[in-house]
Amino acid sequence: MKKIINDPANVVPEALHGFAAAHSDIVRVHLGPDYIMRADAPVSGKVAVVSGGGSGHEPLHGGYVGAGMLDAAVPGPVFTSPTPDAVLAATQAVDGGKGVLHIVKNYTGDVLNFETAAELAGADGIEVSPVVINDDVAVEDSTYTAGRRGVGGTVPLEKIAGAAAARGDDLATVTAVSQRVVANVRSMGVALTACTVPHSGEPSFVLPDDEIEMGIGIHGEPGRRRVALQPADEIVAGLLGAVVEDLPFQRGDRTLLMVNGMGGTPQIELYLAFGIAARLLADRGIEVSRSLVGNYITSLEMQGMSVTLLKLDDEMTQLWDAPVHTAALRWGT
Amino acid sequence: MKKIINDPANVVPEALHGFAAAHSDIVRVHLGPDYIMRADAPVSGKVAVVSGGGSGHEPLHGGYVGAGMLDAAVPGPVFTSPTPDAVLAATQAVDGGKGVLHIVKNYTGDVLNFETAAELAGADGIEVSPVVINDDVAVEDSTYTAGRRGVGGTVPLEKIAGAAAARGDDLATVTAVSQRVVANVRSMGVALTACTVPHSGEPSFVLPDDEIEMGIGIHGEPGRRRVALQPADEIVAGLLGAVVEDLPFQRGDRTLLMVNGMGGTPQIELYLAFGIAARLLADRGIEVSRSLVGNYITSLEMQGMSVTLLKLDDEMTQLWDAPVHTAALRWGT
Repeated sequence: MKKIINDPANVVPEALHGFAAAHSDIVRVHLGPDYIMRADAPVSGKVAVVSGGGSGHEPLHGGYVGAGMLDAAVPGPVFTSPTPDAVLAATQAVDGGKGVLHIVKNYTGDVLNFETAAELAGADGIEVSPVVINDDVAVEDSTYTAGRRGVGGTVPLEKIAGAAAARGDDLATVTAVSQRVVANVRSMGVALTACTVPHSGEPSFVLPDDEIEMGIGIHGEPGRRRVALQPADEIVAGLLGAVVEDLPFQRGDRTLLMVNGMGGTPQIELYLAFGIAARLLADRGIEVSRSLVGNYITSLEMQGMSVTLLKLDDEMTQLWDAPVHTAALRWGT
Repeated sequence: MKKIINDPANVVPEALHGFAAAHSDIVRVHLGPDYIMRADAPVSGKVAVVSGGGSGHEPLHGGYVGAGMLDAAVPGPVFTSPTPDAVLAATQAVDGGKGVLHIVKNYTGDVLNFETAAELAGADGIEVSPVVINDDVAVEDSTYTAGRRGVGGTVPLEKIAGAAAARGDDLATVTAVSQRVVANVRSMGVALTACTVPHSGEPSFVLPDDEIEMGIGIHGEPGRRRVALQPADEIVAGLLGAVVEDLPFQRGDRTLLMVNGMGGTPQIELYLAFGIAARLLADRGIEVSRSLVGNYITSLEMQGMSVTLLKLDDEMTQLWDAPVHTAALRWGT
């Protein structure tokens, strides 16, 4: 295992220390329990938006804390759900009196621990509304999940929910637009290589030099099938076809197209893939009106990519375009 | 070789096609010769800023084209200098009548080809001022270079030069502040793994599983020495110590600290390294007043990182903070 770390057991707190040092204008970091919150939280009279999950997917979620997006992010150990007490502490810290939206990726541990935290927060007088994201079309159940996994769609969900909260929507309204994102977003990914969790020291799986895993999960859990390494045209067609046909997206739809790197794939390949995806969508009469290309939800140093497609309406487009000021997404400020 | 590509010979034009599709609000891409220019170029009455070099270092340089930074970027083939005619065409395309600054990383091919292009532009009536960046403290000469290599310092140089041009400075003034950046910025990098150029198909070098290369170049060219894999504390201390002692940076200096990923290193490791570097600088009484953490000048999928430190004055700080709207850096707009 080759990593720029000290003790594998301290990777997350040491990284959080650095994150706090780099972005002290945007966030404050609390250690024990660990959470990242907006520097100006709680924002009184605003619905708070909280997300979280295992670390190793950076910039998700901490990179999305700031004005116009998340009020807090709760990072667990690498690929391990945060505890209920950490989610509760973050929820209490950012509650501004108008309730808290929990954005939860559909993994068994995350769902259970956020549920427990929501119950405890409720007993404390804080109204919590959960939204579970399950956009991965690749598989129904997996090592970590009952039902579909939450993957790339989490990024536009957090942006749009955060913008709705920022403009003053109440908890029911923020929840409703968030559920509309969940209903209209689909994703699928591919791995070219595995990744290595620091405290295990061993690759999460073994992939032969001439094979790729279509439908990979963001923890390296199995996908749909292993196939021989293909040209980019075929890889992208495979991912995008599954995504488009699932919703299904249709001629005339306006969409946000996100081509996401899993952490170890060069930008030159992500842009090449974006070009292919945009052309294939044009062939189907589907408009790409917003785009995002880069490392936004990763699996440590895994080489690979995912395609996320969100069917936009006018309101979602406005909320996507609204100002945001976080470590990983920033515009309008 | 596992990459998301089609024909290895077409990687750069296919990636440029995708880049144009993803960022049509910011850039236009010209193919044959290849260059990326601001969508609103030429900007009349403004000094134009042009950079370029081999591809494979993305987001450098195309990701920095846009308002407040570069007017054009000229991408060569992967790790190969752009031709003089491509640099000339970009220079002509963005000239707004006030002259053009060429930002050139100190590699033999880049320097020669930008010089030739500048002569040809001069014959065409365009005044060109070159600034050569050579911030790498690791080695004096290398496979690609006479003298020191240009590496991470290129990013703040392009930002600050672009901001000076945007506020209306004339060519001599933009050149002077650019030279002040070059005089005050130092960098050094480390590789944990090699990278593979698509058209070669083989790793650029071989690094044993238990060794790292301190002082690596951005093309995978040799550094100062190979050493056993070390804890992050020692890696960062080694890089930062060489950087600090070279200028030298001194107690009381205000600085921009950039911790840059080489393309294949997870953000969690980069933030961990940033935290160490910030602490070591605080121990020396050197203030980190601005920071940048992420993949900003890369070597394809190489795992590794570099540390760049720029000694700031008030004017450089203002120019760093000025609005920028590019694919890879955006604030204030």
